[in-house]
Amino acid sequence: MTHTLDAADSGILRDVLDGRWADVRREARELAKDPRFTVEVGQDTEEQRARTFERLAALAEGGYARLGFPTRYGGANDVGGSITAFEMQGMGDLSLLVKAGVQWGLFGGAILHLGTERHHEKYLADIVSLDLLGCFAMTETGHGSDVANVRTTATFDPDTDEFVVTTPSTSARKEYIGNAARDGRVAVVFAQLVTGGELHGVHAFVVPIRDADGNPAPNVRIEDCGLKAGLNGVDNGRLYFDDVRIPRDNLLNRYADVAADGSYTTPIENKTARFFTMLGTLVQGRISVAGGAGSATKVALAIALRYGNSRKQFENPATGDEITVLDYLGHQRKLLPALAKTYALHFAQLELVAGLDETTPDLDLPVAEQHPAEHPDRRELETRAAGVKAIGTWHATATIQACREACGGAGYLAENRLPGLKADTDVFTTFEGDNTVLLQLVAKELLTGYSEHFGNLDLRGTALFVADQVVETVIERAGGRRLLQRLRDAAPSRSDEGSVFDHDWQISMFTHREKHMLESLAMRLRRAMDADDQFAVFNAAQDHLLGAARAHVDGVLLAAFVHAIEQVPAGPERDLLVSLCDLYALSTIEAERGWFAEHGMLTANRSKAVIAAVNELCGAIRPQALTLVDAFGVPDSAIAAPIAWPEDVPEAGGINP
Amino acid sequence: MTHTLDAADSGILRDVLDGRWADVRREARELAKDPRFTVEVGQDTEEQRARTFERLAALAEGGYARLGFPTRYGGANDVGGSITAFEMQGMGDLSLLVKAGVQWGLFGGAILHLGTERHHEKYLADIVSLDLLGCFAMTETGHGSDVANVRTTATFDPDTDEFVVTTPSTSARKEYIGNAARDGRVAVVFAQLVTGGELHGVHAFVVPIRDADGNPAPNVRIEDCGLKAGLNGVDNGRLYFDDVRIPRDNLLNRYADVAADGSYTTPIENKTARFFTMLGTLVQGRISVAGGAGSATKVALAIALRYGNSRKQFENPATGDEITVLDYLGHQRKLLPALAKTYALHFAQLELVAGLDETTPDLDLPVAEQHPAEHPDRRELETRAAGVKAIGTWHATATIQACREACGGAGYLAENRLPGLKADTDVFTTFEGDNTVLLQLVAKELLTGYSEHFGNLDLRGTALFVADQVVETVIERAGGRRLLQRLRDAAPSRSDEGSVFDHDWQISMFTHREKHMLESLAMRLRRAMDADDQFAVFNAAQDHLLGAARAHVDGVLLAAFVHAIEQVPAGPERDLLVSLCDLYALSTIEAERGWFAEHGMLTANRSKAVIAAVNELCGAIRPQALTLVDAFGVPDSAIAAPIAWPEDVPEAGGINP
Repeated sequence: MTHTLDAADSGILRDVLDGRWADVRREARELAKDPRFTVEVGQDTEEQRARTFERLAALAEGGYARLGFPTRYGGANDVGGSITAFEMQGMGDLSLLVKAGVQWGLFGGAILHLGTERHHEKYLADIVSLDLLGCFAMTETGHGSDVANVRTTATFDPDTDEFVVTTPSTSARKEYIGNAARDGRVAVVFAQLVTGGELHGVHAFVVPIRDADGNPAPNVRIEDCGLKAGLNGVDNGRLYFDDVRIPRDNLLNRYADVAADGSYTTPIENKTARFFTMLGTLVQGRISVAGGAGSATKVALAIALRYGNSRKQFENPATGDEITVLDYLGHQRKLLPALAKTYALHFAQLELVAGLDETTPDLDLPVAEQHPAEHPDRRELETRAAGVKAIGTWHATATIQACREACGGAGYLAENRLPGLKADTDVFTTFEGDNTVLLQLVAKELLTGYSEHFGNLDLRGTALFVADQVVETVIERAGGRRLLQRLRDAAPSRSDEGSVFDHDWQISMFTHREKHMLESLAMRLRRAMDADDQFAVFNAAQDHLLGAARAHVDGVLLAAFVHAIEQVPAGPERDLLVSLCDLYALSTIEAERGWFAEHGMLTANRSKAVIAAVNELCGAIRPQALTLVDAFGVPDSAIAAPIAWPEDVPEAGGINP
Repeated sequence: MTHTLDAADSGILRDVLDGRWADVRREARELAKDPRFTVEVGQDTEEQRARTFERLAALAEGGYARLGFPTRYGGANDVGGSITAFEMQGMGDLSLLVKAGVQWGLFGGAILHLGTERHHEKYLADIVSLDLLGCFAMTETGHGSDVANVRTTATFDPDTDEFVVTTPSTSARKEYIGNAARDGRVAVVFAQLVTGGELHGVHAFVVPIRDADGNPAPNVRIEDCGLKAGLNGVDNGRLYFDDVRIPRDNLLNRYADVAADGSYTTPIENKTARFFTMLGTLVQGRISVAGGAGSATKVALAIALRYGNSRKQFENPATGDEITVLDYLGHQRKLLPALAKTYALHFAQLELVAGLDETTPDLDLPVAEQHPAEHPDRRELETRAAGVKAIGTWHATATIQACREACGGAGYLAENRLPGLKADTDVFTTFEGDNTVLLQLVAKELLTGYSEHFGNLDLRGTALFVADQVVETVIERAGGRRLLQRLRDAAPSRSDEGSVFDHDWQISMFTHREKHMLESLAMRLRRAMDADDQFAVFNAAQDHLLGAARAHVDGVLLAAFVHAIEQVPAGPERDLLVSLCDLYALSTIEAERGWFAEHGMLTANRSKAVIAAVNELCGAIRPQALTLVDAFGVPDSAIAAPIAWPEDVPEAGGINP
């Protein structure tokens, strides 16, 4: 089959990509023209921090932070819009992105979602306006992923009606805390709540860390984490609390409270469930990070594909003309499957943002009427967010690296943005949840089938409740057959039966892989429940567990891609997206072809046909590669790389002896 | 099979790793104690450049550069030693490594290997002593990999007995040139030699670029490439020549000369052969880069494994103890197969350095008696160097990234070295030959069977001479059966027939893959010779071509590993290396298991057995992971990461309510 595609219109594609919060995206593209936000290179750490702070103030001034907060505190009560605005900011200055995320997403989000009216009244308006800068102090040097075991304590002293916040050892210092080294005035500190000699688990407290002059508050010690691989506009620091006393009211008391007599009350009796409910507020951060990673990936692809479309290297001996590097199959293979997956991730992101928006209670309601954890789709959303964050940030790291290499020496120069994109996004794979730990969480949630056995789920260990019901895959939940039929309707021409382009077959490969990996994993782990050394059984299955989570996320992405295609009117744009979806599906099957062969799902010939199909699709999509990146709507100011502007790239010229 | 290994002695392993130039390595480890070479972070570009220059002077003063030069110019005539010293420097300051490589390897090497006595007399002593700093000006903005098509011209003017060096267009400027922006006084410039209106292809010329005061020489324009992702101690710049006149004697005339009347003479009539002979001098640079990449990889593994061996996260619910992160299978899988491949690459590197030493003529001989290109093993060495450089530098990028992620947030802090190692080595994958282009070169050389059809080989295009003879693989050339027998003798206990631990089977998998890929590639490309659109046929096979080259290098590494094992006395050290070699072999087979299944070489069950074996080996080797990195002999000063020193890492402590 020879694959030809009519020229598509990037404007039509952009409408599909922009989705429900298109107006927020358009505003962000306008804002990117403001020279105050121009991406710069070559500043030292202090200059970058100062500049990032100025930009943060400019964002606040422009109302950027309003979207995610209640109306009465100067907000606009539009959660989906706030995540979309954050995502768009990921195309620009990434230090600004992360500092904004710390201030309004993590710090502001903790006050908003873990606090009650008394905290909202006191802090939110100042947070939105940037009159109060704060930190989100969760991670400790000794406990990063294992948040349940942080060592900082907040012990209630009924004599003074205060909590005493203590860092009991150096390893319990709060670590990598954004806004701590320079700008933060208060911190939301996660600490073990102790009252009457009893430990009640991790809770969040508002702790002042600096006075009005910027000096550390009494008994607070602050260290600077110093230079980092990237994001040096963000002032990360370490916090130590030497019996810092805070009023009892500083407990963020939405899910638990301590009375003046020291008695502890909570609406969520089960300690594990309470812990996960509090941590559920992290979902917004994970979705935000996934979006930011996607934006940085798009910028890198825009730069590398534009350069690859103009740069020539080596002559075609038959014609004497030099060959455009993007015409080489090897070059296409470096960039085009990554472009397809970037689309898939974008569509999954649109669904995550919509899901977050739908499952987040109206922020303008009284706190007592807000119950996010009770929304039936919330846990599934949290799991999906964890998985997409992991796969999306790894994809960002790999793709930006591929873009850097695809641009050769030019990709190593700071002026061409790729070094900054790479260095700044690198930490995305391990912050807001280490990707490996997140995938483990995904697999565990799938195994429990989102059952009510929530409380028995032990994040820290191995004693898993494994659901008995048959595993249902993402694609099945998304409507299985129906979905497929819709895709067939949308793209009848490509669905020739028996070919690897047959969507029925592609989808069944994804579905069976997820189902088989989960079912066989469940069998292995059920055995662990009776084993002497549960950890050993669990540990021996860890790669299986991670693989099952990946298979699940692969399915999430495919289902999202198919959903998106349905929304595109028939025409060259839909045809192009169908081919791009084929490329995503087939390059995923290609990458996993060892597994498929091991499970009797891919014959040798069919496996080779998959490889050939990926090559064919690369060639078919290549002429429209620039259309596909134009559709992302990356602002020109963000494609701030000389190599991305062919008219400015010197012509190669000839030799005239 | 349960796999237990007795504790090995890192000293014995180190002797094997240190190899023939162990004394050079010991000297380098001593030198690393000198505080002048301490790795630093946080300096701005100008500070880094100044510091790197001071360090370069300190190296010169200590006699570092002597090894690679003839005795009469202050050298020590020890090529293998010079490459080994360079490799060791890769554990320390990588800007210093690259600046030393530019000065003594590329610039000094070009004068040494392309020049004749008149150039040696004039320049070499000053190059060794650092009284003359120079550049290697080959790459142009418009032509990087395609050196044969550089546009800079050097036109002979018989009236003045001079060459006129000209940059005809902006894209012909010399690009990314180390030492150009700040320190270089002269440059070896690669330009198209024109005399009497005739073009003779690329030749090298000595062109002064700065006067004694450091100002640009007349008609030379110099620009600064500015900030880069890393290596900011190296002053990369751009050079433009506006009809710069240089004496005729400045042609480096080992392989071609121009007489006063403008007549051109050369001992190598064939233009392509001449070009490749001149470029053959690049082999030393490629071997050096591979060595430097290996050293940086070892430092990263030392840091990540030491941290992984001390950091604990999550409790074992059965015991209540926290689990050391390196005990997790997922963590082992991130780092231990990479450690095994690092060993394989190290052993291949030892062979490359020995091969370079043996095929490089005695530098103290008169130039007329030096004929490196005529050594029978030279082309095979060049090919192997290209392949190992590509695979080794990609391995460095991937492994340092994995180490960064394995260290979580701590891996993102500059103080823990991983950000610097990552950023500084990133460009290794595209400089000294872009890896993709190098692998293409490897495959093409294998296809020609190193035949005499050298002159017909068209690097730039598609018209390939494909050898008719049966492809012989690395392992077969290295002694095939004999090699296997020796491995069997060395490690009888692990070679149980029918198991995936059977070395016979492992080696046959490598051998058959290389042979099959090359033979089927040859068939595809022979067809291209008659095709209308040769480029299209070649391009459709590009991924096959790159795969064949990878298969070849995989075999090079396995053969080198087996050779090394033979040299280890029987005992726990040999047993450990045999297991590590198994891990290298099996993780390589695992990564390629899709291909093996497609070619009927791996059943579903056996494929699963390979995965299980990799897991088992990870567990077996894990207790000796630190012994294996200790054996690298990375100086303490290079493991300059607080997280790598567990005694300094704060204890996690308990919670005392």
